[in-house]
Amino acid sequence: MADDKMEKIVSLCKRRGFIYPGSEIYGGLSGTWDYGPLGIELKKNIENLWWRMFVQERDDMYGLDAAILMNAEVWKASGHVAGFSDPLVECKKCKRRFRADQVGQRCPECGGEFGPVRQFNMMFKTQVGAVPEDEASIVYLRPETAGGIFVNFKNVVDSFHPKLPFGIAQVGKAFRNEIAPRDFTFRSREFQQMEIEYFVRPGEWEASFEMWRQNVHAFNKAVGIPQSEVHELEVAPEDRAHYSKRTIDFEFEFPFGRKELYGLAYRTDFDLTAHASASGKDLSYLDEATAERFAPHVIEPSFGVDRTVLAVLSSAYREDELGGEKRIYLAFNKAAAPIKAAVFPLLKNKPQLVAKAREVYQLLKKVEPRIMWDDNGNIGKRYRRQDEIGTPYCITIDFDTLGEKPELIDTVTLRDRDSGEQERVAVSELASRIA
Amino acid sequence: MADDKMEKIVSLCKRRGFIYPGSEIYGGLSGTWDYGPLGIELKKNIENLWWRMFVQERDDMYGLDAAILMNAEVWKASGHVAGFSDPLVECKKCKRRFRADQVGQRCPECGGEFGPVRQFNMMFKTQVGAVPEDEASIVYLRPETAGGIFVNFKNVVDSFHPKLPFGIAQVGKAFRNEIAPRDFTFRSREFQQMEIEYFVRPGEWEASFEMWRQNVHAFNKAVGIPQSEVHELEVAPEDRAHYSKRTIDFEFEFPFGRKELYGLAYRTDFDLTAHASASGKDLSYLDEATAERFAPHVIEPSFGVDRTVLAVLSSAYREDELGGEKRIYLAFNKAAAPIKAAVFPLLKNKPQLVAKAREVYQLLKKVEPRIMWDDNGNIGKRYRRQDEIGTPYCITIDFDTLGEKPELIDTVTLRDRDSGEQERVAVSELASRIA
Repeated sequence: MADDKMEKIVSLCKRRGFIYPGSEIYGGLSGTWDYGPLGIELKKNIENLWWRMFVQERDDMYGLDAAILMNAEVWKASGHVAGFSDPLVECKKCKRRFRADQVGQRCPECGGEFGPVRQFNMMFKTQVGAVPEDEASIVYLRPETAGGIFVNFKNVVDSFHPKLPFGIAQVGKAFRNEIAPRDFTFRSREFQQMEIEYFVRPGEWEASFEMWRQNVHAFNKAVGIPQSEVHELEVAPEDRAHYSKRTIDFEFEFPFGRKELYGLAYRTDFDLTAHASASGKDLSYLDEATAERFAPHVIEPSFGVDRTVLAVLSSAYREDELGGEKRIYLAFNKAAAPIKAAVFPLLKNKPQLVAKAREVYQLLKKVEPRIMWDDNGNIGKRYRRQDEIGTPYCITIDFDTLGEKPELIDTVTLRDRDSGEQERVAVSELASRIA
Repeated sequence: MADDKMEKIVSLCKRRGFIYPGSEIYGGLSGTWDYGPLGIELKKNIENLWWRMFVQERDDMYGLDAAILMNAEVWKASGHVAGFSDPLVECKKCKRRFRADQVGQRCPECGGEFGPVRQFNMMFKTQVGAVPEDEASIVYLRPETAGGIFVNFKNVVDSFHPKLPFGIAQVGKAFRNEIAPRDFTFRSREFQQMEIEYFVRPGEWEASFEMWRQNVHAFNKAVGIPQSEVHELEVAPEDRAHYSKRTIDFEFEFPFGRKELYGLAYRTDFDLTAHASASGKDLSYLDEATAERFAPHVIEPSFGVDRTVLAVLSSAYREDELGGEKRIYLAFNKAAAPIKAAVFPLLKNKPQLVAKAREVYQLLKKVEPRIMWDDNGNIGKRYRRQDEIGTPYCITIDFDTLGEKPELIDTVTLRDRDSGEQERVAVSELASRIA
């Protein structure tokens, strides 16, 4: 049943233009996914909501967009070059490779014996510049966006003189050479992160940690992930990174199991101290309130965009019966929905209906461009198509709109996606109804 | 003078938080740049304007967001593996390397002789999967976003059944291992593209080409790049790609010279035919109007985000005298400006002024979150700071706002960036004035 739901979501995503397998016509590239016309709008809605909520609307946050290619020293200082690895085993018989923590004693493919476990670094490596033999030219695709934030801490402080506590936020791609990408977009080799490093006075970390814990839930609510499907897992001291004094994993009930959606970690002053020491630059902060200089401590709320998209899709996925017919629909909230409303002329071959529908369509599109036009097939089919892509409202222009019943002139049928109920609404009221 | 202007822009960008050198605390990574808090807002404004104008507001456009890592076959089919290279020469004496077309007979560093010219492929290479010795695991960071569009042509057609002409648009990172990155963000190794592949019937390419030519100018106008600084260069047949029947380079008068800002090319059916042949997949289009099957021809408008940011910065940069004092300001239009307005209490140590200013600030922030608070230093300094980051309006709350002159209660000073002129405006009118 759960597998079945996942399969249905993957199939809907491809069929309706949300998410396609990467490089598909060439047989694909494992662990990469391409967002189609509806997927990119859904993803943008999520990213824009996050950015508005956590950067633009706040006084204590600074946005950033650092390069994916960074000097390799960044990842030496952060510990990624030495330690960002997964345990790898190879089957002695068929030579297939697996993550050691995901298989048993024997190869799941051929039953062969495994060789010894070795550590496989998950960073993608490339070379910059025209001198390929030069060690110094090796760089890594960033395995997380956080590195770009720490490296720019001093720049942001110098440009804006922010007062503690304050944060730097970044949305961007990160790359991990997963041994076994799986579960649709959940574990992929290229993914989009939304990360915040929130800098605090050492003694004041608990209040900020709690503030961000609540913000994580507020964000879920805003994008339409129900509180009931998200669980806080207090990570035990022995499972936390050595520098972390508290970590919460926010887990979501994905169709393939309860898995990490977001993370929230108190990282002490580990990062700034490590980068100051490795770069030889002073990354301390002068606290004007106390005239003290110190490395601020860090609270890190970390969000995966692709996982958020998947959680939103998964919690919005519905099957029911409407008017005696089975249907599939996506119960996106208005903020997440890629298309905010669809406009239909009742019949395609009546020029007056089409002209009036075009007029309504253009009128709405001026206020909200994410409106879809559909004149293809009967109205029932068009409703079903919009239900499947999660459009909250369908607007039908019929003969009454044109004045066949004079008291209904310039009104349309507004149909609600979830209930399927229809009401008669004046054209002049449509913009505020769908906003 | 021109160099001087460029230096001033680079310095302002760093000082005020628009653009920082990448990995700076580690000595940098040549050809990479990090966008700071104001730079990312400027960049987002440009990207969002483009997306709204060319994707959301149109009926014939489909958005896409394909992975950066693609199957290497994509770049074999497109010709990039074989031919996407720059001529490289090495100095026999000091071993430094240069782009052959950018140096003379002798090494500009040491005067040494050059060795033979060889072709240097500009794609970054990495390996995917846990089997590093496997040839099949080599992939490239995409050198342009267009590849992702062609590979998904069939997916978009299958999901949406679009009628010709229609286009697919994508905004995303591309990577080129430039031998000599230079001119600030103009020629960098990692950059953001906004590309469209617009599919047309072979006989109808000229009308679409002309439509996109005009759209390029409309976009420049929308982001605030003056028409007078943009020049169309009709690329001569011998300088065009072999498959292209017409190409226009849109050149901008950058401080370092007249250089390419955007490109517009008619690419015939080269791309779809090449990918169909290499992948063995049918990428033809069934034209319902004529019941014919064929590979659509392609018009490609291609925009660089970083170059647009640079052109917007360059054309907005101004020095003048105001009230007897020299000042620098950025004359961004309202759409491009990272911060839409700044709110000041006249004095910082008057709680009533600060409270009222906070009230106005919060009121405006609900409508438009990109509002800045500043209570630091005298009003003149605050004006100068906002001028330098291109904020169109400054709003000052003074004693009259509180009713010292009863007829001025609940009014504020609204100061225009470009003229420096101030007027008295009711708080209730502010939101519509700055929108």
